[in-house]
Amino acid sequence: MTEPLRLGIAGLGTVGGGVVKIVRQKAALLQARGGRPITISAVCARNRAKDRGVPLDGYAWEDDPVALAQRDDVDVFVELVGGSDGPAKAATEAALRAGKDVVTANKALLAHHGQDLADAAEKAGSVLRFEAAVAGGIPVVKALTEGLAANDITRVMGVMNGTCNYILTRMESAGLTYDQAFAEADGLGYLEADPNLDVGGIDAGHKLSLLASIAFGTQVAFDAVELEGIGRVSIEDIRQAADMGYKVKLLGVCQMTGRGLEQRMSPCLVPATSPLGQLDGGTNMVVIEGDQVGQLVLRGAGAGEGPTASAVMGDVIDIARGTRVSTFGQPAASLAKATPAQTATPAPYYLRLILLDKPGALAKVAAVLGEAGVSINRMRQRSHDLNTAPVLIVTHKTTRAALDTALAAMVGTNVVEGEPVALRIEQV
Amino acid sequence: MTEPLRLGIAGLGTVGGGVVKIVRQKAALLQARGGRPITISAVCARNRAKDRGVPLDGYAWEDDPVALAQRDDVDVFVELVGGSDGPAKAATEAALRAGKDVVTANKALLAHHGQDLADAAEKAGSVLRFEAAVAGGIPVVKALTEGLAANDITRVMGVMNGTCNYILTRMESAGLTYDQAFAEADGLGYLEADPNLDVGGIDAGHKLSLLASIAFGTQVAFDAVELEGIGRVSIEDIRQAADMGYKVKLLGVCQMTGRGLEQRMSPCLVPATSPLGQLDGGTNMVVIEGDQVGQLVLRGAGAGEGPTASAVMGDVIDIARGTRVSTFGQPAASLAKATPAQTATPAPYYLRLILLDKPGALAKVAAVLGEAGVSINRMRQRSHDLNTAPVLIVTHKTTRAALDTALAAMVGTNVVEGEPVALRIEQV
Repeated sequence: MTEPLRLGIAGLGTVGGGVVKIVRQKAALLQARGGRPITISAVCARNRAKDRGVPLDGYAWEDDPVALAQRDDVDVFVELVGGSDGPAKAATEAALRAGKDVVTANKALLAHHGQDLADAAEKAGSVLRFEAAVAGGIPVVKALTEGLAANDITRVMGVMNGTCNYILTRMESAGLTYDQAFAEADGLGYLEADPNLDVGGIDAGHKLSLLASIAFGTQVAFDAVELEGIGRVSIEDIRQAADMGYKVKLLGVCQMTGRGLEQRMSPCLVPATSPLGQLDGGTNMVVIEGDQVGQLVLRGAGAGEGPTASAVMGDVIDIARGTRVSTFGQPAASLAKATPAQTATPAPYYLRLILLDKPGALAKVAAVLGEAGVSINRMRQRSHDLNTAPVLIVTHKTTRAALDTALAAMVGTNVVEGEPVALRIEQV
Repeated sequence: MTEPLRLGIAGLGTVGGGVVKIVRQKAALLQARGGRPITISAVCARNRAKDRGVPLDGYAWEDDPVALAQRDDVDVFVELVGGSDGPAKAATEAALRAGKDVVTANKALLAHHGQDLADAAEKAGSVLRFEAAVAGGIPVVKALTEGLAANDITRVMGVMNGTCNYILTRMESAGLTYDQAFAEADGLGYLEADPNLDVGGIDAGHKLSLLASIAFGTQVAFDAVELEGIGRVSIEDIRQAADMGYKVKLLGVCQMTGRGLEQRMSPCLVPATSPLGQLDGGTNMVVIEGDQVGQLVLRGAGAGEGPTASAVMGDVIDIARGTRVSTFGQPAASLAKATPAQTATPAPYYLRLILLDKPGALAKVAAVLGEAGVSINRMRQRSHDLNTAPVLIVTHKTTRAALDTALAAMVGTNVVEGEPVALRIEQV
């Protein structure tokens, strides 16, 4: 095993540049740990002329990632192009067909085509690894597929979009509105070209669907992820939640239940004193619950050059060492097609509504909740001067269906102004 | 690879029983993830008659772990006997000589003989893995040797003895003295037969020495760990620390510096709002800092049947899959002999001293600190009725040598009663 392991790197953005730097600067360390030299044969990016702050001399240049993927002097195709289709998909498929191993940071690609790609990898006898696609530098794919492989996983939760967590944290700490915090994040370059990938929960949803697959041995099913972004979270809710000992997080939860596989990505309340509640700023966290290990919490940088390149190179070193793990932790053909749960596991909910100042208004609200079978744990009506009163309710555990029935009936009472806000309180 | 992987399990205590249960109850899951059936050929323990709450029928029984380790029908010797020498060492050596792979949960064995055993494993072409030996169910050995293998690790910190953390947490939360909290932990069965292994920091020091080896590519050097137990931590210090925003933890720190390798296991103050500060009760935490990944925090159960068996079986599944990683993450012969750092990295310190009520007493204390080059960040003298006054000082960053000079001089002033308490404030 002293033959070098030769990389072909497609995509020379932040992460690609970071990978090149590691290979150039840490040759001795990589060889000691990987058991053989790790080298770069060829690279590929859209713009050849661009200065990437790292020398590329000595590497062949390919304009087409598919050509790069098929080169005879490439053992591992490192896919850092991005996007669920197009060149990333074509090149990954070409690499696998050509018998190359593939390391990718592309969550969209795997969320949409993970099963097909895992099948293709297996047919070719190749490995396809994606540590960098989920939670950046946190080695959570490895923890789930390898370290915790003897566990029946019961639930995985994650705050996996640093931009959303930054926005929510700034709303709370600086008293910014959503629009102000969004503009600040945008100014700092934190948002994707299509911001809805971040604030709509899509990017985090991609990651969640990958975690669900490796946690439960199921086929990736991104389409079954219940997605709700943070655009409707108001500063008022963040303040009220804080006042009651909660924080608002864009939280991904996947859970195998008797009713099927739950996959949710939505703004939730979590206890302020829990590890998830204490996670401020752009950091990521994944919480894994297994029947043997109990609760395991992993916290680290979810993005950025160093952390993401660290994850890519972790996969590369595994390949150098001869480690061959199936893409989703078990043979692709053995991954079950999970039935999506039609209803979420019951939970308490936080409700905020504006009550019109009419006699018996609060009684009517309480009545519709009771009729729907939703019982009240805590309620608070704030003192008010105007002819409307803000009311906060924390329910006991309820199904979302019962809650939705109550919310619809509430609007019908004509004592509530506008739409009540309902946020799930995840038990962590 | 459809031949079963056959285990021989030596030691049927809590962890051994947990491993047997997993193998018996999760055959399908283990086969799906490991790629082949995982079975038990033979077991061994001191007392054959004891009921272990799990059936052992169908397994051969050996009275001698060495005989078990050499059986033809054993592929992996699972060493759960414990102890740094004696049968655990003899059987592990015998297994390696016989070409078996070994999985162990034995931190003492590896802390004392890790280099020799890693050499022996390599010579035999065997793997020797020890995930369960460090921080129970937390897959930290895997994270360091594999997931973060592309990083130059700069520092690893850990709270890795649940018993000590339980005692310190109870002192704070219930206002117990050290002796009371110790007695409580003892009553709950949390303490080792020799309690000094826990409260003296030895058990946690063993774990730290293993983390240092895999983090820095150095030979295990437990003898070079600077050890200080929690026996001298008083409730007064815990209260004062809390009042200033700190928690007291038995914290392990290993760090590669220009002065050599630092390995310290001692009671330290950490910010109450940091992940380490928020760790209450018996849970473990390891904080890893790498040049690429930044700071990674891992938190989970550090002991107990399920978590430890989870870690053992994670190693077993790796072997079933054909993963072959060197014991300490790189070839044993390439592990450097690290020079121990003679002095710790400078840090702020917390000092508590009892001042005699004499004119100019405080000035004298301040003067000796200044003369030793130790500058004061915060100082607080409490109001008092008696003829002594408690004084708390937080210094700016200083070397331990300068501090020790100051403390010695302080005792010489005759204005201080008894020995001042000095606790390091680790910057986390």
